[in-house]
Amino acid sequence: MTTATLSVDLKALSENWRALNAKSDCETAAVVKADGYGLDAGRVAKQLAKAGARTFFVAVAEEGASLRAALGPEPRIFVFSGHMHADTAMLQHADLTPLINSGDQLRHHLAALPGHAFGVQLDSGMNRLGIEPADWQDLRQDALAHHPVLVMSHLACADDPAHAMNAAQLTCFRNMTDDLAVPRSLAATGGILLGPDYHFDLTRPGIGLYGGAPFTDARPVVTLSLPVIQTRDVEIGENVGYGNTWAATRPSRIATVSAGYADGLIRAMGPQLSLHAGDIACPIVGRISMDLITVDVTDLTYPPESLEILNAEQTIETLAKAASTISYEILTSLGARYSRVYTRS
Amino acid sequence: MTTATLSVDLKALSENWRALNAKSDCETAAVVKADGYGLDAGRVAKQLAKAGARTFFVAVAEEGASLRAALGPEPRIFVFSGHMHADTAMLQHADLTPLINSGDQLRHHLAALPGHAFGVQLDSGMNRLGIEPADWQDLRQDALAHHPVLVMSHLACADDPAHAMNAAQLTCFRNMTDDLAVPRSLAATGGILLGPDYHFDLTRPGIGLYGGAPFTDARPVVTLSLPVIQTRDVEIGENVGYGNTWAATRPSRIATVSAGYADGLIRAMGPQLSLHAGDIACPIVGRISMDLITVDVTDLTYPPESLEILNAEQTIETLAKAASTISYEILTSLGARYSRVYTRS
Repeated sequence: MTTATLSVDLKALSENWRALNAKSDCETAAVVKADGYGLDAGRVAKQLAKAGARTFFVAVAEEGASLRAALGPEPRIFVFSGHMHADTAMLQHADLTPLINSGDQLRHHLAALPGHAFGVQLDSGMNRLGIEPADWQDLRQDALAHHPVLVMSHLACADDPAHAMNAAQLTCFRNMTDDLAVPRSLAATGGILLGPDYHFDLTRPGIGLYGGAPFTDARPVVTLSLPVIQTRDVEIGENVGYGNTWAATRPSRIATVSAGYADGLIRAMGPQLSLHAGDIACPIVGRISMDLITVDVTDLTYPPESLEILNAEQTIETLAKAASTISYEILTSLGARYSRVYTRS
Repeated sequence: MTTATLSVDLKALSENWRALNAKSDCETAAVVKADGYGLDAGRVAKQLAKAGARTFFVAVAEEGASLRAALGPEPRIFVFSGHMHADTAMLQHADLTPLINSGDQLRHHLAALPGHAFGVQLDSGMNRLGIEPADWQDLRQDALAHHPVLVMSHLACADDPAHAMNAAQLTCFRNMTDDLAVPRSLAATGGILLGPDYHFDLTRPGIGLYGGAPFTDARPVVTLSLPVIQTRDVEIGENVGYGNTWAATRPSRIATVSAGYADGLIRAMGPQLSLHAGDIACPIVGRISMDLITVDVTDLTYPPESLEILNAEQTIETLAKAASTISYEILTSLGARYSRVYTRS
């Protein structure tokens, strides 16, 4: 087998949910949008349902329909993008709960699916999704008359506990909702860590479940092992890879592994990163190419059969730093060619 | 429908193949690894087979098996990673032709699948895949006795016609193969443009088929249209998106579209890029998030239903520049949530 192996530790996932649930003084849901942050929304959600999660969040109706098929009828599935005109049948058939983002969505929902459960997404300052405070004044009477099951908003800067935006959004959200008798939600992973003022009735962890910052106590969830296709010796001065960007400065042994940027191993990471053989770090040399990565294995005393790029020591945060991005993008970029193995270690 | 629509112009794909075929004074194959550069290897290869391609290349045996199912028995399918020990059954059952990269692969192939067609990949200086010149001296007698159907190598710097590496690799490849009576291949898209000295018996275009540089005459193949979920007005000084990285400097209208870095729209592109409503460019404002992008649509006179991020004017090369990468990575990152439409415009 020449494809790499992506192992997802479902036990670590459950433990991360339990740890965030223990920090939440309310119900703890789970965000499984973007196919469960790239790890298979169905597998992830079923595991978290076993751990105790009863409420899930996805980005779009299509994801909700797939998730409903995997989870069965009981859990509540919220859709962040709300009720788009073409989504009506899917929301109805898969029993999805749209989070209404605008007056247009509210009017359409009440007309197209009267009596069908909905929540309301409010904008508390991020200006991305949700009803604006001024519009909420106009719409709230209509919305409340139809008994929304949740009102929620999203924090723009929760990864930075010191950011003044957090308190500003909290105040804005409270001003819009303190007089309501409707369950409320404001916090994703970062918001949980900001403390109980931010928790209300439901928290919605996402990245923390999958092992990413800012939940630094999270257990790593993914291991990614790349098979070696061949190794070769190169002399001082020989180049490796596209564009001759690397040349050997000592007699070196180079391994070529089967994975590349087409597998979501972001091309920009190349020179900043090593692959691992046990405890030994083997630097990537030359450019990451579409299906292949070249690695300096000179310091190994044996020819490796595979090398790890993600494990308990080199995490999604390490890769994010090497790619100048965030661990969320590392996870959601993981590609379709991997053999995926789900463990309960 | 809240998912974005990725349109693949199969006619443009065929025309790109024909244009590269017209430049190749020999057989022209097609590289469809990484799921046809993210566009569906089966759909792409069937279209190119209609255009006249008879030989295809993939990265790993698993891709070859899928492609065989799509293409039927006739076309030749080469596997760049060669004959890995665990691939034997798949190579046999799907009638795939491994490109042997090492003495170990050669010995294994001859023992495990005697009489099964194979090619040989030689390393002419890139030091990534293929048999080294010194090893080829030792192995060539054995290999040639079993009648390889192709000997090939790959250029490291063909995107840069002035690079001295091109001529050095050509010389190295000729030194290893000039006395052989075996069909030869050295050129991918860049190599085709280097001229007939590089063509030998078979060229293997990849990126040029899909509309990417260095084949600047390529027709764009992909259009990507992102649905607008909602629009909102923001006042001067209001922030948009994660981390408050953007603030309005005029009263602005912001549209939020349904797609993000989980759909392969690389997070780093954000501030460098616009989405398009017809001819009007609408700048991305704030950070690209996982499932959403916020866009300044103040200059539009109407509320847009969707905005294009890829079209005939804003191509994969534009996005590559905004993300500081190459168009290959833009294509192979395109995500799984899109509604994919195949046109023959």
